[in-house]
Amino acid sequence: MSNSLGKLLVVTSFGESHGRCVGTIIDGCPPGLQITADEIQREVDKRKTGIASTTREEDDRVEILSGVFNGYTTGAPICLLIWNKDIDSSDYERMRFIPRPGHADFTAFMKYGGFNDFRGGGRFSGRITATFVMAGAIAKKLLKLKGIEVLAHTVEIGGIKAELKGFDEIKENVEKNLLRCADLKASEEMTRLIKRVKGEGDSVGGIVEGIAINVPVGLGEPVFDTLEGELAKGLFAIPAVKGVEFGSGFSTAGMRGSENNDPFAISDNKIIMLTNNSGGVLGGISNGMLIVVRVVIKPTPSIAKSQQTVNVKNMQSTQLTVGGRHDTCIVPRAVLAVESIMAITLYDLALRSSGGRIFLEVD
Amino acid sequence: MSNSLGKLLVVTSFGESHGRCVGTIIDGCPPGLQITADEIQREVDKRKTGIASTTREEDDRVEILSGVFNGYTTGAPICLLIWNKDIDSSDYERMRFIPRPGHADFTAFMKYGGFNDFRGGGRFSGRITATFVMAGAIAKKLLKLKGIEVLAHTVEIGGIKAELKGFDEIKENVEKNLLRCADLKASEEMTRLIKRVKGEGDSVGGIVEGIAINVPVGLGEPVFDTLEGELAKGLFAIPAVKGVEFGSGFSTAGMRGSENNDPFAISDNKIIMLTNNSGGVLGGISNGMLIVVRVVIKPTPSIAKSQQTVNVKNMQSTQLTVGGRHDTCIVPRAVLAVESIMAITLYDLALRSSGGRIFLEVD
Amino acid sequence: MSNSLGKLLVVTSFGESHGRCVGTIIDGCPPGLQITADEIQREVDKRKTGIASTTREEDDRVEILSGVFNGYTTGAPICLLIWNKDIDSSDYERMRFIPRPGHADFTAFMKYGGFNDFRGGGRFSGRITATFVMAGAIAKKLLKLKGIEVLAHTVEIGGIKAELKGFDEIKENVEKNLLRCADLKASEEMTRLIKRVKGEGDSVGGIVEGIAINVPVGLGEPVFDTLEGELAKGLFAIPAVKGVEFGSGFSTAGMRGSENNDPFAISDNKIIMLTNNSGGVLGGISNGMLIVVRVVIKPTPSIAKSQQTVNVKNMQSTQLTVGGRHDTCIVPRAVLAVESIMAITLYDLALRSSGGRIFLEVD
Amino acid sequence: MSNSLGKLLVVTSFGESHGRCVGTIIDGCPPGLQITADEIQREVDKRKTGIASTTREEDDRVEILSGVFNGYTTGAPICLLIWNKDIDSSDYERMRFIPRPGHADFTAFMKYGGFNDFRGGGRFSGRITATFVMAGAIAKKLLKLKGIEVLAHTVEIGGIKAELKGFDEIKENVEKNLLRCADLKASEEMTRLIKRVKGEGDSVGGIVEGIAINVPVGLGEPVFDTLEGELAKGLFAIPAVKGVEFGSGFSTAGMRGSENNDPFAISDNKIIMLTNNSGGVLGGISNGMLIVVRVVIKPTPSIAKSQQTVNVKNMQSTQLTVGGRHDTCIVPRAVLAVESIMAITLYDLALRSSGGRIFLEVD
Repeated sequence: MSNSLGKLLVVTSFGESHGRCVGTIIDGCPPGLQITADEIQREVDKRKTGIASTTREEDDRVEILSGVFNGYTTGAPICLLIWNKDIDSSDYERMRFIPRPGHADFTAFMKYGGFNDFRGGGRFSGRITATFVMAGAIAKKLLKLKGIEVLAHTVEIGGIKAELKGFDEIKENVEKNLLRCADLKASEEMTRLIKRVKGEGDSVGGIVEGIAINVPVGLGEPVFDTLEGELAKGLFAIPAVKGVEFGSGFSTAGMRGSENNDPFAISDNKIIMLTNNSGGVLGGISNGMLIVVRVVIKPTPSIAKSQQTVNVKNMQSTQLTVGGRHDTCIVPRAVLAVESIMAITLYDLALRSSGGRIFLEVD
Repeated sequence: MSNSLGKLLVVTSFGESHGRCVGTIIDGCPPGLQITADEIQREVDKRKTGIASTTREEDDRVEILSGVFNGYTTGAPICLLIWNKDIDSSDYERMRFIPRPGHADFTAFMKYGGFNDFRGGGRFSGRITATFVMAGAIAKKLLKLKGIEVLAHTVEIGGIKAELKGFDEIKENVEKNLLRCADLKASEEMTRLIKRVKGEGDSVGGIVEGIAINVPVGLGEPVFDTLEGELAKGLFAIPAVKGVEFGSGFSTAGMRGSENNDPFAISDNKIIMLTNNSGGVLGGISNGMLIVVRVVIKPTPSIAKSQQTVNVKNMQSTQLTVGGRHDTCIVPRAVLAVESIMAITLYDLALRSSGGRIFLEVD
Repeated sequence: MSNSLGKLLVVTSFGESHGRCVGTIIDGCPPGLQITADEIQREVDKRKTGIASTTREEDDRVEILSGVFNGYTTGAPICLLIWNKDIDSSDYERMRFIPRPGHADFTAFMKYGGFNDFRGGGRFSGRITATFVMAGAIAKKLLKLKGIEVLAHTVEIGGIKAELKGFDEIKENVEKNLLRCADLKASEEMTRLIKRVKGEGDSVGGIVEGIAINVPVGLGEPVFDTLEGELAKGLFAIPAVKGVEFGSGFSTAGMRGSENNDPFAISDNKIIMLTNNSGGVLGGISNGMLIVVRVVIKPTPSIAKSQQTVNVKNMQSTQLTVGGRHDTCIVPRAVLAVESIMAITLYDLALRSSGGRIFLEVD
Repeated sequence: MSNSLGKLLVVTSFGESHGRCVGTIIDGCPPGLQITADEIQREVDKRKTGIASTTREEDDRVEILSGVFNGYTTGAPICLLIWNKDIDSSDYERMRFIPRPGHADFTAFMKYGGFNDFRGGGRFSGRITATFVMAGAIAKKLLKLKGIEVLAHTVEIGGIKAELKGFDEIKENVEKNLLRCADLKASEEMTRLIKRVKGEGDSVGGIVEGIAINVPVGLGEPVFDTLEGELAKGLFAIPAVKGVEFGSGFSTAGMRGSENNDPFAISDNKIIMLTNNSGGVLGGISNGMLIVVRVVIKPTPSIAKSQQTVNVKNMQSTQLTVGGRHDTCIVPRAVLAVESIMAITLYDLALRSSGGRIFLEVD
């Protein structure tokens, strides 16, 4: 396993869904950032959603174990932890050797020789994204000091697409509905769909869009540590993500160069682009426009319907009905994870960029 | 800049489009692999395409500068190099302060304070992918020793989609047409489109699919170094890639869980999946099925049409018509790059995986 | 800060001397290793020493927070933690702006802008080595499965040198005295010296030797990740270490090549060396002989004598007498840290080595 | 193998002693540094020494293959290369299966399965340090822009110790003698010794000291990436280095805390230390004083005397007399390598440090 992300801001995730805790270490955070457990708590609480999600009561309390002294970061590694409670693992023993389709059960069993903690998906549970959200809370605060804001929202669920909105409207509207969708009308429709699908014992997926504003020109370290590549790598750590695209993304396959190229122009004595098909990245480097990334979240693999699978121990085919409490749609939960991974990665690249440039500049 | 990819197999790329050379260092290649410059040459030659591409004669000769002795790799870093020839940089001086829309000119100028080698795009040129292809030739040979094969092909150009084919047919057909498309009928249509678009002074993009067969269960190091994340990071180093998806990718947004989950079954006493919506990856780990990844390539930004841009020196708006020789469609060239990045990443993950597991297993 | 060590076995340290806890994450441990908190506890308990050390009662209880399930490692990151108790920080507020000579107070204050947790030395306290010892306990167990054993012992304190002993005698004798010195007679002399020096309000340093047996030929990844280089890097993380040498070390400066070269010979159909001036490493790679490394530990900087220092706030010279409970000699505590760092590094290099070689070998 | 050093300034070494070339890639060098091949050449030429060294004529010409445009670094990876000439490999075929005592022949043969390029030591030759010196030339120039200067000199050869000198005298005197020793009288004595030892068919080792002035407080990233640890790791890449110590180093083992602690004082409204037993590093972080490091270089393993060794193929004991041209004392050649590794590491840590701190500071 490889559970660290970033080069100068290094985030390490640990813990299991039904183990003692989930936690994160943030190493490389500059000293002097004012931070409280309550602030981080508020971000974690946003993961709790109503309609779309499991009924498990996650009374998650964030604790700061290290790296903060008298209310300020010290420069030392920050350990943030949530103790697990309210855990019912009874259903998992039954499925120990019967991998759930669409889950990591099979690959984890094979890779870790059956020693992996399979309860609740263990390290592969969506709950692990709480560790991203805790670290992301710190990264978001660091970015805000530079005026950079990261925001994610649901733009599609089960085929229902949200209408495009401006940044401020998105920011306001995501707090108004449990699906964290900026198009409130679409959100209602999505909610109805989720309820119906839930009744069918099935699940739906969707698309989350992440946006970052005020990102200066220059983040990204080509040719291999591009802004897109680093963001994509981080985003694929969110369970159920199966695709990542920037700006016009896959739709550029059908566009002409003359349509897709974003013309440069001068505005307020600053160079801007008149369109943003690039999603804010050219040559793997931020270009000063909005960073726009979309990730697709596959439908929750845990469904109440009977599914064909196998027993890896006796190598027999079998049918499985996954019980327990599961989100019909995990898209809303992924929203916070996308925001967090974006913030962590952008801040890491900002540090690397200033590290790489500052020495000569100072002269 | 950050020009190294991989952790145990580390590939470092260097050189510029109009500089003295482009080259690569492959560090971590096991000793004892038989390899000749000719074999690597054959892979590099596949990058040369006719219809879709520039008329620049790339008589690229691969040289092995280190790491190979008596025809075998030694375990030492392998330096592979192509000297640049036939370079006409005259057109670029004119555009030094006038960034071409859709190119990295603007971001490179800003990030590197105007010191970047702007001729032919410098480090941001598609020519840099020749360094990926050289390293990929070695990675592909290493994988083949384990029966793993990587194959990429064009599946869409300018909105024209190729029909799905089986692995063997793809392998055979890509060599039969310059677009490296397995659907020969679609290829003809694409060719006509490219010619027409070229006549219009415009360009088109498309989609490349990469496939890997016989990948064993267990490659990928979650939660952050997932198979998808590592592949995506590498693939975004290919200029013009704006999205990466696995298996059913973005289309899973409209699917139900019951449709998308791949049922497990027993075949020949092996566990397989009856469908492959996952693209061969579950929980960030290979599941033994075909690895299937698709990348979208934006239309070539260099077009003959006049475009709106700015002069970064005098901060005035201006119009630009990009001359020189440019591919109307770079999709066919990207095919080899996709194949190469996949091979490099899969082999690196294979080393990491065996490293992580072998010690206890041996007992 | 950069608090992770290793490439495939990655150990991350966190926590502060007078904060809530000290802890470690071990990422990359193979699944299937049987391990209990008690076993790790036994290693941590060895750090408690009598004569040489502070009177602080460290009733440290190791807790396993993640990565172990049903008594076996799972392949997931292992979090080990010790809650801090019995903390008296009263003396440190007084010294907040008055750096203690020989300590990290001054550099930490400057580097972290005064935000560092200064109580008890914070991140720079010797107590942080408990996190190395916890991780080392796991690495030592992993190595033992391959027959590799790591052992450290005190070879010099305050100028008193121990006589050379064989591996088995060292192993037995270190447990017989609080100084973990294999020469029991020298140990008594050292003890008397420490008592006398303590009475004088002063402190002494010394030398710790680390040995590893049964290390196979081939560990170490030149030219930069040599066995010596990787070990040295890790060992300098132990507070107070000011030098590292292998085999004949600094004394080779006065030797002739003919004396220093270790002749090869055949023994039991195995290639051995007749002497071990190399300390088991040639060309940065283990040669199958005993790995022998020595680190020098400077005298404890905390002394009861009055010392000249400054007040960084008002920039005035001042005198300081360090109160509190401090080891007169920290050498015995460093013994376990040396052993632990050696084990972590050797296991990491073993994984890297097998990762690098196994793929071709299997064919 | 692992042939890259550094995190933000990444130096990759490649090439073999008797292969086509030796070279280096410097990735992460800021754009805008004026540099010529001639400047780098001058540093490489300092490696050529008379009395102490082999008679091989190294007419090494440094070529810049990438990363420099119009005389300035571009921010892209810089490839520097020296083509090998004047190579006589005839003597090595004879020794292919007969490892030379004290050399890497045996460990390289075993680790790389006999595929390693054994001619002239291949990757393990002292000639590889020319790649460090090329990269170091750039790092030294970058440091000089900030007023930081790195300087190494010979302080001991074959038991003959040089007297201590001040920085300026060292700087001047090293250029006055081939041994790069600041004590010119000792240098003469050393020269006589080397001549005598050469006549005996034997060799001698020694100690090189590296110094850095004007290093600001704050370089080094504890707990694991300490200034000492990172320097030591790099220095052990120099063939024949068997020990590294800082400040008073191994002699602190016999000191009392009251002697060893460097008292703080105010001078010119700056905090200084009145002594420098710490060698400029406290808690793994530079403290503003001179960085002082010493490395021990073992006697050249290649000697004309007959030595006992084995034939690894037929597993028989045998005698070996190493012919060819070899330095009787490689200490003077190591001087430049020490300087170079110090410069590379200090600059890398400077980038990491500014990267880590600058973001909050700017506000």
